[in-house]
Amino acid sequence: MDLNREQSSLLAKTQSWLIKHDIFALLVRSTDRYFNEYVPRHLSIRGKLTGFDGSVGDAIITQKEAHLFIDGRYTLQASEQAQGFSVHVASNTQSIESLWLTKLATLLPAHSTLAYDPSTVDLSLFDKMSTQLEKNQVKLNDDFQAFVEDVLGPDGQKLSGEARAFIAPLELCGMTVLEKLKKIKALLGELCVDGMLVTKLDDIAWLTNIRSHYFPYQSALPGIAAVFFDRIIFGAGVNVGLHVDSGIKLVPEAQFFQAVSEHMNRAMRLGIDAAEVSKAHELSLHKHKIAVQRVKSPTALLKARKNEKELLHLRSAFKKADHAVLNTQNYVVDCFEKNQSLNECDVDDYIKNAFKESGAKELSFRPICASGEHGAIIHYGHPSSEKILAENSLFLLDTGAYYEAGYATDLTRTFLAGKKSATAHPWQKHMFTLVLKASIRGLSARLRRGTIGMQLDAMVRAPLWQAGLDFAHGTGHGVGINVHEFPPRIGPTSTTELMEGQVFSIEPGLYFAGLGGVRIENLATIVADPDHEQFMRVLPLTFCPLDERLIDHTMLDAEDKAFLEYYRQEWSNDAPWPNLPPLTTMEFLTKRV
Amino acid sequence: MDLNREQSSLLAKTQSWLIKHDIFALLVRSTDRYFNEYVPRHLSIRGKLTGFDGSVGDAIITQKEAHLFIDGRYTLQASEQAQGFSVHVASNTQSIESLWLTKLATLLPAHSTLAYDPSTVDLSLFDKMSTQLEKNQVKLNDDFQAFVEDVLGPDGQKLSGEARAFIAPLELCGMTVLEKLKKIKALLGELCVDGMLVTKLDDIAWLTNIRSHYFPYQSALPGIAAVFFDRIIFGAGVNVGLHVDSGIKLVPEAQFFQAVSEHMNRAMRLGIDAAEVSKAHELSLHKHKIAVQRVKSPTALLKARKNEKELLHLRSAFKKADHAVLNTQNYVVDCFEKNQSLNECDVDDYIKNAFKESGAKELSFRPICASGEHGAIIHYGHPSSEKILAENSLFLLDTGAYYEAGYATDLTRTFLAGKKSATAHPWQKHMFTLVLKASIRGLSARLRRGTIGMQLDAMVRAPLWQAGLDFAHGTGHGVGINVHEFPPRIGPTSTTELMEGQVFSIEPGLYFAGLGGVRIENLATIVADPDHEQFMRVLPLTFCPLDERLIDHTMLDAEDKAFLEYYRQEWSNDAPWPNLPPLTTMEFLTKRV
Repeated sequence: MDLNREQSSLLAKTQSWLIKHDIFALLVRSTDRYFNEYVPRHLSIRGKLTGFDGSVGDAIITQKEAHLFIDGRYTLQASEQAQGFSVHVASNTQSIESLWLTKLATLLPAHSTLAYDPSTVDLSLFDKMSTQLEKNQVKLNDDFQAFVEDVLGPDGQKLSGEARAFIAPLELCGMTVLEKLKKIKALLGELCVDGMLVTKLDDIAWLTNIRSHYFPYQSALPGIAAVFFDRIIFGAGVNVGLHVDSGIKLVPEAQFFQAVSEHMNRAMRLGIDAAEVSKAHELSLHKHKIAVQRVKSPTALLKARKNEKELLHLRSAFKKADHAVLNTQNYVVDCFEKNQSLNECDVDDYIKNAFKESGAKELSFRPICASGEHGAIIHYGHPSSEKILAENSLFLLDTGAYYEAGYATDLTRTFLAGKKSATAHPWQKHMFTLVLKASIRGLSARLRRGTIGMQLDAMVRAPLWQAGLDFAHGTGHGVGINVHEFPPRIGPTSTTELMEGQVFSIEPGLYFAGLGGVRIENLATIVADPDHEQFMRVLPLTFCPLDERLIDHTMLDAEDKAFLEYYRQEWSNDAPWPNLPPLTTMEFLTKRV
Repeated sequence: MDLNREQSSLLAKTQSWLIKHDIFALLVRSTDRYFNEYVPRHLSIRGKLTGFDGSVGDAIITQKEAHLFIDGRYTLQASEQAQGFSVHVASNTQSIESLWLTKLATLLPAHSTLAYDPSTVDLSLFDKMSTQLEKNQVKLNDDFQAFVEDVLGPDGQKLSGEARAFIAPLELCGMTVLEKLKKIKALLGELCVDGMLVTKLDDIAWLTNIRSHYFPYQSALPGIAAVFFDRIIFGAGVNVGLHVDSGIKLVPEAQFFQAVSEHMNRAMRLGIDAAEVSKAHELSLHKHKIAVQRVKSPTALLKARKNEKELLHLRSAFKKADHAVLNTQNYVVDCFEKNQSLNECDVDDYIKNAFKESGAKELSFRPICASGEHGAIIHYGHPSSEKILAENSLFLLDTGAYYEAGYATDLTRTFLAGKKSATAHPWQKHMFTLVLKASIRGLSARLRRGTIGMQLDAMVRAPLWQAGLDFAHGTGHGVGINVHEFPPRIGPTSTTELMEGQVFSIEPGLYFAGLGGVRIENLATIVADPDHEQFMRVLPLTFCPLDERLIDHTMLDAEDKAFLEYYRQEWSNDAPWPNLPPLTTMEFLTKRV
C-alpha cells in the first residue's frame, strides 16, 4: 500500500514536472546505463515511477496519461502493479520497443517534445525513434539528469559500496585474458578496426575473467571496456580492489573515455556496435574525438560458444542446482506427508537455503515460487506467506544460482504439492504431459547445420499447436555469465543461428489465468552429430527428475518413452559429461545407402 | 549426341564473340523477358548455350570458362547435360542468384566487362549486381541483342502463331475484372500510386481472366500490363483474337509503354515492384517519361488467397488429377500382373493420355516418370524407353495438368512397380514411411496465425532430421494459374506469411543417388480453425491413395494412424469440399479452462 502511494505521488510529480518544463512526454526504459536486464530496485527509475517490478518493460508518461509496454510474460503482474497506467502487451512476434515505437505517433502531438534518457537508448533504437518522431516533427530532449534531480533527488543513480569482485578460476573458465585477446585480435583485423567498445557487462566479465556479485542476480561488475589488440581498458563502475591480469588496464569509469582517447593514435578506429552502444556513449566518444566505425561486435559469439572447461564447469554447476531443486520438491512432499502447512515463502526460503548449502554464491534471479493459480503469472516474482499450498495443486518453481566461477544456472520444475501417493487431476496430467512432449522435441532434436532459433522454436511448439495451445514467451535463451545471454535465442522471431557449444534453455509452458501453469525448463548445449556431418545434436545438461505423478503415459509415443528412459538413466550418471539421447536412426537405410 | 555437338559449337562461338568484342563474360539467365519459369526450348538461350534444360539455372560464360549455377534439385541432371560447364550448386538456404553474385568477384578481373540481358534482370537483382561489380570496377554491357543476332541469329526470341486464348468461366474463377479492379483500387490508394505495372504473366491472367495455352505448361498469355483505378492496359505479346472485358484495353506489346504514357497525366505515378520489373522495363519507362514509384506489388497476394469458387474449382480439378494418377499407378500394376514389360516412356504416355481423358487441356509441367535410381534425380525430365521398370523397384510419378479454368494441378506419388501382391524391401518401406510421416506433419498442421513458411518447413522436416536425413528442395510452393505460384513458399528460408485461402503443395522427399527416391506431394489450403480463433488449420485437397504396400505400420504413431484413416475416408467423400483432419485436441483441458 505504501508502495502504491509513493508511486502515485511520483507519477503526479512527474506529470507536473512535464507541464512545468513544457515537455509533452517522458520515455522511461527498464534498463539502466549498463543495459542490465535486472536493475536493482533502488536504481530502477522505471520501477519507481510505475510500481511494476518485472525485469522488462518501458513506460511513456505524458502530461495527462501513463502507458506501460510489456511482453506476454508480465500481463497479469503489470496490471496489478502499475496503477494508473494503461498496459500494452507486445505479441509473441513483436518487441516491446516496436510496440511503443508504433504508438508514438498517436501518443505525441505534432511539434511536441519527448524527453528520454540517452544512456538507456542504443544507437539502433535511437535511429528508429528519430525516424518515427521526424514524421510528426516531435523534438527530443536528452537532459534526463534534470528530471532525475528534480523529481527523484540527487543520488538516484549513484553506485557505492564494495565491488565483491573475484577472478574466475582458470580451470573452470578455461581461457586466460591473453588467449581471449589473441582470438579477438584476429576478428578485429577482419572488421578493419583497431579496437572495440564493449558495453555489455557479461562480455566485459568474459573478456577480463573478473566476476562480481555487486549487483544482485549478477556476476558481472558494472563498468565499460574497450578491447584492443594487446590490452583491455576497463572503466570500472566501482573500486575493484583486486589484482587483475596484466592485459587489463583498470581506470575509474568516469575516466574511461579519456583513457581510451589517450591510448589511440590519430590513425586508429574504435569499432562500436549500434545495438550495444547508447546515445550517451556516442556523445562521450564524440566529445573525446575518438574515431569510430560501426561494426557487429565480435565478443558475444565468442562468449556464447563455451570452451570445454566452461562446459564441464557448467554441467557440474547445473548438477548442484538440479539437486537443490529436487531437495525442495522432496521437502514439499515431506511437509504434506507430515500434514505440515506450507506457504509460498516457506518454499522460497527453502530453495534459497538449498542453493546456499550446495555452494552457490548468489541467486541468478528472484526465485519464482508459484502455487496453484499463481503459476499462470509467467514471471511471478513475489511469493506470498498468505498463499498456503493446497493439497494436489500444482507448484511451479523456477530458480537458478551462481557457483564458484560466476556462471548462472536456470531450471524450472512443476510438481504436485501433496503426499507421495497423491493422484493428479486428469487436466493437470494433460497440461504437464503436453508441455513435456514439447520439451522432448527440443531436448532430443537433431538439427541441420545452419538451423536458426525460430525453426527449433516451431519444432518445440508443434505438439502444443496441434492441441490448440501455445505459450506467450520464447522457447529458450542462452545461459552463461548472465542467466539470459544472447545469442542464441529460440523464439518465434529468432534468426540467430544455433551453434555448437552454445548453452541454452528449452522451456515450453502452458498457462491458464485463474487456474495455474506448467513450465518445464531444462538446459542443453549443441554438439556435433557423431553420425551425420551435416547435422548437430541437442545435448541436455540438466536431469533433475520430473514429477512422475504428472505424466500421462497414454499420451507418450515411442520416441517420448525412449527419451524419458534415457533422461532417468542420466540422473544417476556420475560421469562429468552426459550421453546423447537415443534417436531411432534409420540404421538399415543408412547402411543400405 | 547432335544436341551436344550443337551446344559445344554454340559455346565456342559465344567465347569467340566475347573475345572479338573485348567483353570478358556473359551472364545468361534461365528466364525470358516474361520472367517465365518454364521457357519453351526454342526460346531458351540458357538452354541452347548450356545444354541443360532444367527450369531454373543461370550461366556465366567467360572468354575461357563456362559456369552453370543451379539448385539441389538439378545436381545430377546438370552434370550430365551441361558439358564443358563447371556446375555450382546452391545450398538449401541460398538462392542461385546469391551464389553467382558471390562468385562474380573471383570470375571477373578488375576493369573487365560483363554483358547481360537487361530484360531478364529485375531491379532488385540489378542493384545487388551493381554493388558487387562496383567493388571490382567491372563494367556492364546491356546490348544483349547484338549477341543474340550475331551468335543465335535474328529470330531467336520472336513470338508467333496462335494465341489459343480463352476466358476463364466466371462460375469457376469467381470474380469479374471489375470486381478485381475495385479491390486493386483500394490497395493502390494505400500505396499512394495511381496505377501499377504488372509484369508477372500469372498476375495478368488473374487480373484479366484471360487464359491461354500459348506456351506449353502455362495458362497465361505473354504480355505486360498496367492496372489503374478503372482499367487495365494489356500489351499482349501475341494477337489475342478474343472479345475481352470492357475494363481491359488491349494493345500490342510493342505499343504498351506508349499507351500507358498516353493514359497517364503529369500528376500521376505508376507503381513498380523492384522484384518484378526488369532493367529493360525501367529503360522503357524512362524513355516514355512515365513517373514511377517503387512499391510492393499488391496483386500477388490478392491472387494467392483464392475465393470460394476458385477453391471449389481447384478441388474438383485436383480430384480429376488424383484419378488420372491412380489410374496410371493401377496400369503399372496391371502390366506386371500380365507379365507385360513397361518402360518409362510407356508410363509417360499413359499419364498424358489419362489427363486428356479426364478433361485436361494442357499439362502443367513435363511429367516426371522416374523408375528406380532415376527417382533420385529430383526433377527427372526425360523418360527413357530404354529404362524398363524392374519388378519391385520404386516408381516416382510427379505430374499435373490444366483443366477448364486454367488453374494448375500438381501431385507426386511414389509406388512399387510390381504385382499387386508384391512385397516391398524394408529399406523402401523405411524411406516411404519416413517421408509419409513428414507429409502428415504438414497436412495435419494447426498453425498459429502469423506462421511463416520456414516454421511449417521445420515442422515437416523434423521427423526426417531426427533420422539424420533431409531433402535438398523446398517443402512446398503455391499453386494457382502457375504451378509454382508465389506467395506462399514453404522452405528453410521462406519468410512469407501463411494465410487462409492460399493453395500450396506439401512435398517432402528422400533421395539417394544410384538407389532411388521417394517423394509424396499433396496439395492443401489453409482455413480458419473452427475451434481456436488464434489458429488456422491446414486442409488437404488431394487424396489420391498411397501405395499401402510401402507403409511400415510399426513406424506410425497414433496421430499418423488417425490421419491415414481420415485420408482414406476422404478419398470416397463425394462432397465438393473435404473435411478437416482429426486432431487430438485436449477437449478435457479446453473445457476445464
